[in-house]
Amino acid sequence: MLMKLLENCTGAFSVVNMKKISVGVLGATGMVGQTIVALLDNHPWFEVTEVAASEKSAGKTYEEVMGTRWNTSSDMPEYARNLKIKECTPKLDCEVVLSALDASVAETIESDFAKAGYAVSSNAKNHRMDPDVPLLIPEINADHVDLIRTQQKARGWKGFIVTDPNCSTIQMCIVLKPLMDNFGLEKVIVTTMQALSGAGYPGVPSMDIADNVIPFINNEEDKVETEPLKILGKLSQGTIKNADFAVSAQCNRVAVRHGHMECVSVKLSKKTNEDEIISRLESFRPLAAMNLPSAPKRPIIYQRNQNRPQPKLDVNLENGMASVVGRLRKCNILDYKFVVLGHNLVRGAAGAAVLNAELLKAKGYLSG
Amino acid sequence: MLMKLLENCTGAFSVVNMKKISVGVLGATGMVGQTIVALLDNHPWFEVTEVAASEKSAGKTYEEVMGTRWNTSSDMPEYARNLKIKECTPKLDCEVVLSALDASVAETIESDFAKAGYAVSSNAKNHRMDPDVPLLIPEINADHVDLIRTQQKARGWKGFIVTDPNCSTIQMCIVLKPLMDNFGLEKVIVTTMQALSGAGYPGVPSMDIADNVIPFINNEEDKVETEPLKILGKLSQGTIKNADFAVSAQCNRVAVRHGHMECVSVKLSKKTNEDEIISRLESFRPLAAMNLPSAPKRPIIYQRNQNRPQPKLDVNLENGMASVVGRLRKCNILDYKFVVLGHNLVRGAAGAAVLNAELLKAKGYLSG
Amino acid sequence: MLMKLLENCTGAFSVVNMKKISVGVLGATGMVGQTIVALLDNHPWFEVTEVAASEKSAGKTYEEVMGTRWNTSSDMPEYARNLKIKECTPKLDCEVVLSALDASVAETIESDFAKAGYAVSSNAKNHRMDPDVPLLIPEINADHVDLIRTQQKARGWKGFIVTDPNCSTIQMCIVLKPLMDNFGLEKVIVTTMQALSGAGYPGVPSMDIADNVIPFINNEEDKVETEPLKILGKLSQGTIKNADFAVSAQCNRVAVRHGHMECVSVKLSKKTNEDEIISRLESFRPLAAMNLPSAPKRPIIYQRNQNRPQPKLDVNLENGMASVVGRLRKCNILDYKFVVLGHNLVRGAAGAAVLNAELLKAKGYLSG
Amino acid sequence: MLMKLLENCTGAFSVVNMKKISVGVLGATGMVGQTIVALLDNHPWFEVTEVAASEKSAGKTYEEVMGTRWNTSSDMPEYARNLKIKECTPKLDCEVVLSALDASVAETIESDFAKAGYAVSSNAKNHRMDPDVPLLIPEINADHVDLIRTQQKARGWKGFIVTDPNCSTIQMCIVLKPLMDNFGLEKVIVTTMQALSGAGYPGVPSMDIADNVIPFINNEEDKVETEPLKILGKLSQGTIKNADFAVSAQCNRVAVRHGHMECVSVKLSKKTNEDEIISRLESFRPLAAMNLPSAPKRPIIYQRNQNRPQPKLDVNLENGMASVVGRLRKCNILDYKFVVLGHNLVRGAAGAAVLNAELLKAKGYLSG
Repeated sequence: MLMKLLENCTGAFSVVNMKKISVGVLGATGMVGQTIVALLDNHPWFEVTEVAASEKSAGKTYEEVMGTRWNTSSDMPEYARNLKIKECTPKLDCEVVLSALDASVAETIESDFAKAGYAVSSNAKNHRMDPDVPLLIPEINADHVDLIRTQQKARGWKGFIVTDPNCSTIQMCIVLKPLMDNFGLEKVIVTTMQALSGAGYPGVPSMDIADNVIPFINNEEDKVETEPLKILGKLSQGTIKNADFAVSAQCNRVAVRHGHMECVSVKLSKKTNEDEIISRLESFRPLAAMNLPSAPKRPIIYQRNQNRPQPKLDVNLENGMASVVGRLRKCNILDYKFVVLGHNLVRGAAGAAVLNAELLKAKGYLSG
Repeated sequence: MLMKLLENCTGAFSVVNMKKISVGVLGATGMVGQTIVALLDNHPWFEVTEVAASEKSAGKTYEEVMGTRWNTSSDMPEYARNLKIKECTPKLDCEVVLSALDASVAETIESDFAKAGYAVSSNAKNHRMDPDVPLLIPEINADHVDLIRTQQKARGWKGFIVTDPNCSTIQMCIVLKPLMDNFGLEKVIVTTMQALSGAGYPGVPSMDIADNVIPFINNEEDKVETEPLKILGKLSQGTIKNADFAVSAQCNRVAVRHGHMECVSVKLSKKTNEDEIISRLESFRPLAAMNLPSAPKRPIIYQRNQNRPQPKLDVNLENGMASVVGRLRKCNILDYKFVVLGHNLVRGAAGAAVLNAELLKAKGYLSG
Repeated sequence: MLMKLLENCTGAFSVVNMKKISVGVLGATGMVGQTIVALLDNHPWFEVTEVAASEKSAGKTYEEVMGTRWNTSSDMPEYARNLKIKECTPKLDCEVVLSALDASVAETIESDFAKAGYAVSSNAKNHRMDPDVPLLIPEINADHVDLIRTQQKARGWKGFIVTDPNCSTIQMCIVLKPLMDNFGLEKVIVTTMQALSGAGYPGVPSMDIADNVIPFINNEEDKVETEPLKILGKLSQGTIKNADFAVSAQCNRVAVRHGHMECVSVKLSKKTNEDEIISRLESFRPLAAMNLPSAPKRPIIYQRNQNRPQPKLDVNLENGMASVVGRLRKCNILDYKFVVLGHNLVRGAAGAAVLNAELLKAKGYLSG
Repeated sequence: MLMKLLENCTGAFSVVNMKKISVGVLGATGMVGQTIVALLDNHPWFEVTEVAASEKSAGKTYEEVMGTRWNTSSDMPEYARNLKIKECTPKLDCEVVLSALDASVAETIESDFAKAGYAVSSNAKNHRMDPDVPLLIPEINADHVDLIRTQQKARGWKGFIVTDPNCSTIQMCIVLKPLMDNFGLEKVIVTTMQALSGAGYPGVPSMDIADNVIPFINNEEDKVETEPLKILGKLSQGTIKNADFAVSAQCNRVAVRHGHMECVSVKLSKKTNEDEIISRLESFRPLAAMNLPSAPKRPIIYQRNQNRPQPKLDVNLENGMASVVGRLRKCNILDYKFVVLGHNLVRGAAGAAVLNAELLKAKGYLSG
């Protein structure tokens, strides 16, 4: 314990004089927004200077609005309590904005911020599939960040937008990446069992989901079938060439608070075996050299107990940033099947937006 | 309303003087056993004369044992309250036994009953895959019942055993049957989300499943992958030739009381389209001529709302005997995908054993 | 079974030629409204001729609006599917309106209907405590219906309003009535554990209640503490004199779909014992002579198993119209304590409004 | 952050060379036992040297047995993985045993250990009400620990037993203590809504509690009604004189993983008001001077939001060692009512046993 503390102390010393990068959170009162606010508490690189939300909340302090709605088990960070909520207009005092805006308003607001010179790391779906907008998972396609050049040239913006994928796409893609690189990837069939927090707040009415499963999530299957192709695609000469495999998805809502579970079957190009696959998953360490503060040490954790992963036991591994895999075995139809779990609010949304912002800094797209 | 009542009255008159067939329920105190007891209340053909269970319960009345464990929302039938529980030995005063025995004891006990001349309709897994034991879903393979001849000859039994499939197999097979007959069936990938009651009682500890999904059910995937091939196979010259398609299954437990949900993708041999498939599903009426009392009028119900089927809304359709299908659409990997729901305790277990017994009578294998 | 059917047939014959009373349902698309629509399917006295809701739904058929929102396990009644939804203005073609309106709009709309000559049986809270409005539980205060005379005189209305109590008040008062009549009632302490459906739809967000208890329901405790005094009061010379006891309530929301549970302690005026109390509860049959179609045969059911009542086992007894009591025992502070359960949507809301309308007819306040 | 780290570093330095006291955990494989194992990870005073359980587990490593049963969201501590499980006989290599034994075996085993010279801090109910056994909540009755003298004299034991109260008693008593001290306490009525983990593992079958409330927990009400009188009693001349108030309890099981909620009404001897009561609760700091490592800084936390406390938001405050109170208001029958929440596995069981062991050390009953 002592050694660990000394390490921390040292870390703290080295950090203490660095000027932090100022961050604004758009949509800070929603489920994803408040998770971003929580994750940025004591962040070594970033400091939240602005929280913004709809007109209805603007003018109140964050604590006034969120006092009865704060919906995570950790306390509201001290730094956030007295921040005055602003409207989502590009007059915020910050360099970066992390956007947890609802899709109904994100398109214009995010463009306005980018135009005005802000760096936008967005969790909204609106710009994800724009050809000149990076759809980033740093473990997979950190180089796609350079699509920003294309974007700024094409749009004449001083700022820019980068996006993170849909909450059920991310965790699966992180597992598909080493499969594709090592064995070739041809087909993916996935059935999801998605948590309640993925629908935001108020989100799913309790009367709809208590003692029930809902076999439909609006637009979700389309996202899971299309986003991976861009994410796992190649950036070349300023455009992304989609990866060449197919995905078929069935998406369900289940009565679990946090953690999307996914049953996946894959067809690979090369012959392999379970041990080799597991070994490749466990040794996947693409970000080891970058020291991004929110990057999980182990982006993929393989659980050997046959009844894992489970939301209640595994969702918080690596502070909620891991893709937790289990039950890898042969499939009678495709080649292999397995189960993957990710924390939809952290790895799948808030943590993804924060990690993308860290990547922007590491790649020199932010000051400091 | 009046017309319906008169119909019922007429039906009642014609039934009233018929001597009913005596039935014993083995494993009558378990979750499936008590559902059989409930379903046989006022049954037009059968009368429960015996309930049998383990040594521990033997000698007490059914009400004494089940008073605090009766676990269905309907009241315990009057007829059952004062029945004295017997041990599961072939000295019961009845012609047929419906077996809801645990797999750990079913093998021997069921054989003993069949040897002693009883007709056994079993829900246990032990004899399902015996080559000379029918694995019946009357809507699919009513003719397989004649495998009884082979069985009796081979084993020298006066009685016989017929079985019903695993609770997540039945509902899916009922949908596969018209697909196979009309379009040819080559491949099936299925992910299940199975209800708590499928694990019996006490079954799944609440601490394991509250706010959780468990991606593993012991031996379940093997059953779902192998039983359909026998069920949809052909009886010819006293043996069953398995159907020629492949199934890959991933089985999960979710926190729902009743109703197994299944996300299925299929590869068919012939080209078709959604409308034609739905039409074939909805017009599937294989038992129309047989008038089995527990047979659902519509064995397959197709729900057009995009968020159906759901356990809470659909599990009790056709008194829990329907396979409820929804969301039929194209699959990027195989051909079509859909969701199917069935009541695991009724269509998938107790009701299946009762329906099989009705089939035995209709086919002349019982007296009366 | 035969005898029962013949009885039903006879009953059906005598009913078949009677002209039914026309009923409109206000707020027909909400949780209570749809339950009223379901309960009035094949009602022997009433016929739903109108369904009314907010402007947003008006002009569409009931099926168009409710297709994906119908939230009960029984099917939508045939009669309702093609009814065109009207706005809630007093131009509906019916004699009676059953109001399931939200409190935010009920006050004016219900008054407008009463003024225009309609008989209004309301489930909304707005008029409950008006001194000239009956707050009815037919088993307790059927005579209070005559407060209508006072109301019509005071307000100059051709029609009138009667109300039913809050969903956690009704079931408890039904038990308090025989206690008060036989033993005198001085004090009541109650802690409720209330079901999700009591909050309507969309009601409680799943993220608020999954794996949680919420110890607060807005305004609920005040209703539970004041309504019983009026309900159990005496009508004399056109006004109600409140009953003379005190209630203290703590109200909680729990993750149960249907059925409010209440732990009650009471102080009585006379000495008694458990057997006598149970006997008085079980023999409580105040409506036996009136033959109201929705009145439960046994308004109070006492369950002797020590772990009852339970929502999953008892909520539907007497078609959801019973107060189910258990665990009567001595209290160290007051005199006796017990648990009572009622179906909040049926006994506590929709069924209560229907039963009140039946009482109006039986008392001559409606035509026919 | 830096200041906080330096503080921690200093604390760590002062601790680093202390020899730790050796601890054995009895019943280490149960729900409470594994929570003790988790809480003692990196404990500054104690070191787990032995884990013991039933014959069935003995001889295996802790990881072998608990791999699929470890049921907390934190990982299994490294120190525990390779510990070999022993049988529960007084030959363990340790000075103190923390007992999480089942009541069916605790009585004899704990006595055997105490006789053999071990200090026993027990969570089992068996010895709680023995007149010569302390029933400790350090915040309330740390002085009762001296009852050990009486116990050792009477029984001729070298070791001794101290106990912690039932899991729904502790959190309530912590609140009753400042009420009694400041205002006098006469009557307590409490209704509990208790979490699933309170029933151990496998504990409550999911089929019993899904979508349900069970209004009965075996023997629980008796414990809640009697234990507080001893706990809040006075030790004088080697015996405890019970406190002079009465408790009436109704105990319910609800579908929540962790956190017992309790709705309490109290009658006090002196007049007071809400502000004064809240002030006394918030300033309750009885252990401030003792520096017990597991003692919560604030044993009572008062939440001002009207919908608090809630299990999902408040159960882990003060590392699960706080009594979280809310909704203090006047009661129409007694004087005041409020809601109190405690983490049943931590404050109510495992953490209580650890804290009692810490008290033993601070009071000089252990070595070191």
